[in-house]
Amino acid sequence: MSLPEEFVRIARHFRPLAGPGALGLVDDAAVFTPPPGRDMVVAADAMVAGVHFLHDDPPDLVARKLLRTNLSDLAAMGAVPLGYLLTLSVPRETPDAWFAAFAAGLALDQAEFGIALLGGDTTSTPGPVCLSLTILGTVQPGQALRRTGAGVGDGVWVTGTIGDGALGLLAARGEIDDAFLADRYRLPRPRVALGRVLHGIASAAMDVSDGLVQDLGHICRASGVAAAIEATLVPLSPAARRMERLALCLTGGDDYELLLAVPPALDARLKEVASAAGIAVTRIGAFLAGEARVTVLGQNGAVLPLERGGWSHFG
Amino acid sequence: MSLPEEFVRIARHFRPLAGPGALGLVDDAAVFTPPPGRDMVVAADAMVAGVHFLHDDPPDLVARKLLRTNLSDLAAMGAVPLGYLLTLSVPRETPDAWFAAFAAGLALDQAEFGIALLGGDTTSTPGPVCLSLTILGTVQPGQALRRTGAGVGDGVWVTGTIGDGALGLLAARGEIDDAFLADRYRLPRPRVALGRVLHGIASAAMDVSDGLVQDLGHICRASGVAAAIEATLVPLSPAARRMERLALCLTGGDDYELLLAVPPALDARLKEVASAAGIAVTRIGAFLAGEARVTVLGQNGAVLPLERGGWSHFG
Repeated sequence: MSLPEEFVRIARHFRPLAGPGALGLVDDAAVFTPPPGRDMVVAADAMVAGVHFLHDDPPDLVARKLLRTNLSDLAAMGAVPLGYLLTLSVPRETPDAWFAAFAAGLALDQAEFGIALLGGDTTSTPGPVCLSLTILGTVQPGQALRRTGAGVGDGVWVTGTIGDGALGLLAARGEIDDAFLADRYRLPRPRVALGRVLHGIASAAMDVSDGLVQDLGHICRASGVAAAIEATLVPLSPAARRMERLALCLTGGDDYELLLAVPPALDARLKEVASAAGIAVTRIGAFLAGEARVTVLGQNGAVLPLERGGWSHFG
Repeated sequence: MSLPEEFVRIARHFRPLAGPGALGLVDDAAVFTPPPGRDMVVAADAMVAGVHFLHDDPPDLVARKLLRTNLSDLAAMGAVPLGYLLTLSVPRETPDAWFAAFAAGLALDQAEFGIALLGGDTTSTPGPVCLSLTILGTVQPGQALRRTGAGVGDGVWVTGTIGDGALGLLAARGEIDDAFLADRYRLPRPRVALGRVLHGIASAAMDVSDGLVQDLGHICRASGVAAAIEATLVPLSPAARRMERLALCLTGGDDYELLLAVPPALDARLKEVASAAGIAVTRIGAFLAGEARVTVLGQNGAVLPLERGGWSHFG
């Protein structure tokens, strides 16, 4: 009795990625012992070709982006990654080389982030490639970062640089010519190393995935505070600065940087742990008393009008 | 700043399904304390419209089938369900009523199986509806059922009836007229109540999702044994019996019954726990020494030729 292609493909490309709990991917589910005394942190994200990545994006980078957007969610919760499950719905004619490259991308990031594949499913689709990944991590009980704790007077901080993701999409599409930005779009840098040491420093946290202004609005609503940021303080990469597309940088998606609320008394502590993690942090504004809304101030202190608070993959 | 449709939809339809660990679905991930002293069991399955369900299948039944196929994986591992994460990629024009019905189906099954939504993602797709669900459960350490333990002389047992899923697909497509079978295709009955009490009774277990013969082959390969089953012993529903499509029943998919290896000395114990769970169990053959392969014997004891060992969603 010959095995259908699905099982051959799993054995060839995905079994080498499987951790001990995955039982060689031959059982109906994975089994693992959670690290004693820790809470589990779980998140899931989907990506669809033509919506979240381009049809001709290299499969290894698509795989790594899928994994990294989920790792970014763990970073935002202050969690340590443990493993992941993956479902792939791909057109029937997808060549074996696509799976080989996809798995090679996962292997690279498994090594970088110290995680392993736990299980999943592959299936065909008459439509575009549709991927879903569930990430599992752990955190000390009571130490998960939340969106709810931002206090009046806390600073608004971001990691890295903002806007490269949105500009990078234009670069990946060939609309602008910049290899740095295209790479930033295709390969997010989840701030796991910083997120896991922010308990006791950040009063609220999330990752910037749908645009800085919109995501800051989420923290405001969850915490019952307002926020004002100064556009000139928002850290832009040299490449982004050259493009002079500030509104896009502030509202575009795909940054996967951390957005933090930090009480002023803890500024020095934040800089210390960020420096130790090798991750830049920048204060761009403050949380204020008032209705949950975000104000963006321009160079002359005037309020910048922003039509939309960012973009959603649904928008 | 208005919220994009995605967030409105999550708040309206999915937040009511969220368990305490889901943090109201407003954070980047869910956080929960694993039941102390137990191992975690995790599995993920994807379903695509036009492949795993019909485009016009009722959304509440699509949702329940997605959840139940995953619950069936937990049943096969002997695990107790805990919660799930869900990603939905749907066409932009999907009406709100579709989401309402989909969520209503989930709510029904959450109550029936004692689980809650932990998190997920919704996104648009230019293609067919593409769903992915990750289920989380727990098991006593060392008590997970595996495919690897079938021993020579163990009986081959199945729960419920076999073949209703494959025939039910024909009924759902309108190719045959039978409401019972269509329902069996659309609404699997995961054998969670039995699976969780099979430790110490079943030497190997899996769920029948890709066809009885093919799935039995999986146990044979994992356990290093052969198996022979008698076609006349395979339990068929009255509706399936009327259709006289035995080969389809033995090789078709979507049964979501349990396939078990049970040492003869434990037959009485199996019947006892199955009876207590209200689930029929039937012995259909035995595991034998020899190369990992499945033999199906017909009414006269002759070997039935089966072209394929079942079907895969990829095949």
